[in-house]
Amino acid sequence: MDNTVLIGNKPVMNYVLAVVTQFNAGNSEVIVKARGKAIVRAVDTAEIVTRQFLPNVVKQSVTTSTDQVEMDNGPSNVSCIQIILAKS
Amino acid sequence: MDNTVLIGNKPVMNYVLAVVTQFNAGNSEVIVKARGKAIVRAVDTAEIVTRQFLPNVVKQSVTTSTDQVEMDNGPSNVSCIQIILAKS
Repeated sequence: MDNTVLIGNKPVMNYVLAVVTQFNAGNSEVIVKARGKAIVRAVDTAEIVTRQFLPNVVKQSVTTSTDQVEMDNGPSNVSCIQIILAKS
Repeated sequence: MDNTVLIGNKPVMNYVLAVVTQFNAGNSEVIVKARGKAIVRAVDTAEIVTRQFLPNVVKQSVTTSTDQVEMDNGPSNVSCIQIILAKS
């Protein structure tokens, strides 16, 4: 799980920096994960990393899924995304 | 382009209904597209269709990209998603 970047509510560039740092530390693969509204920032992060910062990194796979989370008024479904970035 | 559902700012269920209608009309493949903040609703739409309404439909591919749009203050990049749903 060391090479996973979980996207939250911070500005996109924080997560771009986190991904770039992981690659610079020697990882050949970094997994970007997000749930709910953060999904947009996960896609933004992957696009900015591959287009602007690390042209030799590609989106190896993009998958979506559904998680069930417990809310105050019972269980609720939330969409998730997982983007695997890898050195090409 | 007849089998494409472009996701906007309406409630998710509108787009779920649009996708289900396309499949019921005989299409074997429906493409769900979104840009920017609507990306979350595109993922929600695909998840709800495949999990709750059409269990025989699968996510064939999920791809992300970047579009350049003209804003008042010059060109700006916006992330896009394209989810291909297909009868399995």
